[in-house]
Amino acid sequence: MTISRAECAALDAADPLGHFRDEFALPEGTIYLTGNSLGAPPKTVAAAVARVMGEWSDRLVGGWNASGWFDLPLTTGDRLAPLIGVGPGQIAVGESTSIAIVKAVSAALGLRPGRRVVVSDPANFPTDRYMVEGLVRALDGYEVRRLEDLDATLDDDVACVLMSEVDYRTGDRHDTAEVTARVQAAGALMIWDLCHSVGAFPVDMSRADFAVGCTYKYLNGGPGSPAFVYVHPRHQAEAEHLLTGWCGHAAPFAFEPGYRPAEGIRRFTVGTPHVLSFAPLHAALDIWERVDLGAVRDKSVALTSLFIDLVDGFGASYGLGLLSSRDAGRRGSQVSLTHPEGYPIVRALADLGVLGDFRAPDTLRFGFAPLYLRFTDVYDAATALGEVMEKGHWREERYRRRLAVT
Amino acid sequence: MTISRAECAALDAADPLGHFRDEFALPEGTIYLTGNSLGAPPKTVAAAVARVMGEWSDRLVGGWNASGWFDLPLTTGDRLAPLIGVGPGQIAVGESTSIAIVKAVSAALGLRPGRRVVVSDPANFPTDRYMVEGLVRALDGYEVRRLEDLDATLDDDVACVLMSEVDYRTGDRHDTAEVTARVQAAGALMIWDLCHSVGAFPVDMSRADFAVGCTYKYLNGGPGSPAFVYVHPRHQAEAEHLLTGWCGHAAPFAFEPGYRPAEGIRRFTVGTPHVLSFAPLHAALDIWERVDLGAVRDKSVALTSLFIDLVDGFGASYGLGLLSSRDAGRRGSQVSLTHPEGYPIVRALADLGVLGDFRAPDTLRFGFAPLYLRFTDVYDAATALGEVMEKGHWREERYRRRLAVT
Repeated sequence: MTISRAECAALDAADPLGHFRDEFALPEGTIYLTGNSLGAPPKTVAAAVARVMGEWSDRLVGGWNASGWFDLPLTTGDRLAPLIGVGPGQIAVGESTSIAIVKAVSAALGLRPGRRVVVSDPANFPTDRYMVEGLVRALDGYEVRRLEDLDATLDDDVACVLMSEVDYRTGDRHDTAEVTARVQAAGALMIWDLCHSVGAFPVDMSRADFAVGCTYKYLNGGPGSPAFVYVHPRHQAEAEHLLTGWCGHAAPFAFEPGYRPAEGIRRFTVGTPHVLSFAPLHAALDIWERVDLGAVRDKSVALTSLFIDLVDGFGASYGLGLLSSRDAGRRGSQVSLTHPEGYPIVRALADLGVLGDFRAPDTLRFGFAPLYLRFTDVYDAATALGEVMEKGHWREERYRRRLAVT
Repeated sequence: MTISRAECAALDAADPLGHFRDEFALPEGTIYLTGNSLGAPPKTVAAAVARVMGEWSDRLVGGWNASGWFDLPLTTGDRLAPLIGVGPGQIAVGESTSIAIVKAVSAALGLRPGRRVVVSDPANFPTDRYMVEGLVRALDGYEVRRLEDLDATLDDDVACVLMSEVDYRTGDRHDTAEVTARVQAAGALMIWDLCHSVGAFPVDMSRADFAVGCTYKYLNGGPGSPAFVYVHPRHQAEAEHLLTGWCGHAAPFAFEPGYRPAEGIRRFTVGTPHVLSFAPLHAALDIWERVDLGAVRDKSVALTSLFIDLVDGFGASYGLGLLSSRDAGRRGSQVSLTHPEGYPIVRALADLGVLGDFRAPDTLRFGFAPLYLRFTDVYDAATALGEVMEKGHWREERYRRRLAVT
């Protein structure tokens, strides 16, 4: 080991983000390295959801006006905007990332008539690929092209490219400015999936055409909190998407016979917003408004680098590989290891209080959320992983039984 | 007036559903006739949402398994099934009605290849019409046909018909068995929108092909609680829809390259469920499991008939028209009146504690939720409406100013 636990404790003491940990409810004895899957709850979420339930019982249907429920997709979008480097009036919040992909891709196709190809990165999270597949199959004359080498993939038929800023398996990140510029130079539109980047470091979508993402990973918005779609202002007057719901209508309460899109980002809202699911997200955003994203990135790099250094001390001798990049500049806030017995290893580790997750076929994922993780947590997690590997108790039958959701 | 307040109080005392009122949180002094828009909160919702927040802080990402979050769309669907006369494994819950319409219509088109027409009822709520419009515009070679006379509208080109069991403006209901049979006899598939019928009376979708609906009106699931889609078992092996998200995949955690639909109704789930928004709905379903829907219908007919009788005593002299049917058998649980000054009248009435709503251009809507409304409420509401009309204080300028959401 290259560092002692005492040295990690000293890093914690000097951590400018250290005080945020107290704002999250984390079970005693748990080191939570799955914040890249579902973030931890801010302590204020119970009060936030109770407040919305109170709005319902006090105001009943009047809450749509008096409590601002109807505008939640846009007011929440404006609060998210700084986290992805864009301005107000550019993000609509609602539904899931899957649905946001339909909005972005169908709008992009409309903006590039004559171009019939959607480029989809095989490294995207499955729902991105599946949603594009379903959409394109329904549309006559379009096709999906797998992204391989970017320059070889781009041609005059490509309408848009859907890629993820951070790869959900490897944890590695793309240079979004560079990729966006190349895609746009080829006449295509760039759509970024930010699920594994927003809240992990400063994101800059100011030159992208579209972006989508969830709010329940690094942002800590709660299980199934609403997703978002970003649309660059240069496209907002022209962009029309497939999911033309009443909330996106220019006059939703005029009950006109035909659809007429609202001005601006509101046209990217669809159905009645899931009001209650916005509440924990707002509690989380109350925290984010006080966070320096540059400090988040600095700490993220330090945490992931520390974990890699510590695992380097024993990993290879037990067959653990490093899937993530060794170059911190190319990593998000996640470290992925590989092992053919990854699943029972992750489960055995959980029994020691260290929560990572497993992704088929052989990937152990560890997310490092800088708002609530300490350097000592990283030290203890690596130590526990070393113990699991050394003692080999992951070989026990009970760790091999699959849970329904893994 | 044909009945006294004392007689109404006697009806309340004998009401077999009367005790349910105590299970809802309603503000003092309010007569809530907008439960057809947003239902009232069960008193247990605060505990229900606190429980889910506790699952999050106790189990973190483990909640997807241990708290059954991942399966909520199906377990909730099974709890809804008796309310629409169908069985388990036939309903998927999630997203909004708008999104559910895309699922149902796109699946129906796939089941009727060669038929290129979607029939949409102009009486449907706008989002139904707008979503069909957006979907069909995206699909090459399909068209939307406005429903006029059903037999004249149906021909060999019609793939499916989308109608609402209860008209959101008039409150009148269709005979779903009769309409379904005629549509199916023409070789088309029948899709019912149940937003304004589920929870208002016993619904029977056992012969329909598809149904969609929301859960926040008569069902009292809370603002923006998740919607549902029903798929008849005879279609489940073949029906494939456009929104092919990862949750509907046969092996969502195998991260396969291509989409492969799950067996059964699970393929109608899409993205990560909005977990928290399911919590109040389950609190509401705890009540519904103890409710006799036949008694709900009987009381609904009695309440709406009473309101019509009472308004008959003064309405015509002030220009109030009855838009709903006088035949109780053709009504849902809503009475709609018309008046060119409907908007300020509804607002003036609200100042007397009677909450109805307005729908452009001239409709005053009053919903009668049998679980928490009393006969004396109906008496008092009609009396208040008579007072508003007699005194004419709806003419005051303050009642004419439009609220953002009306």
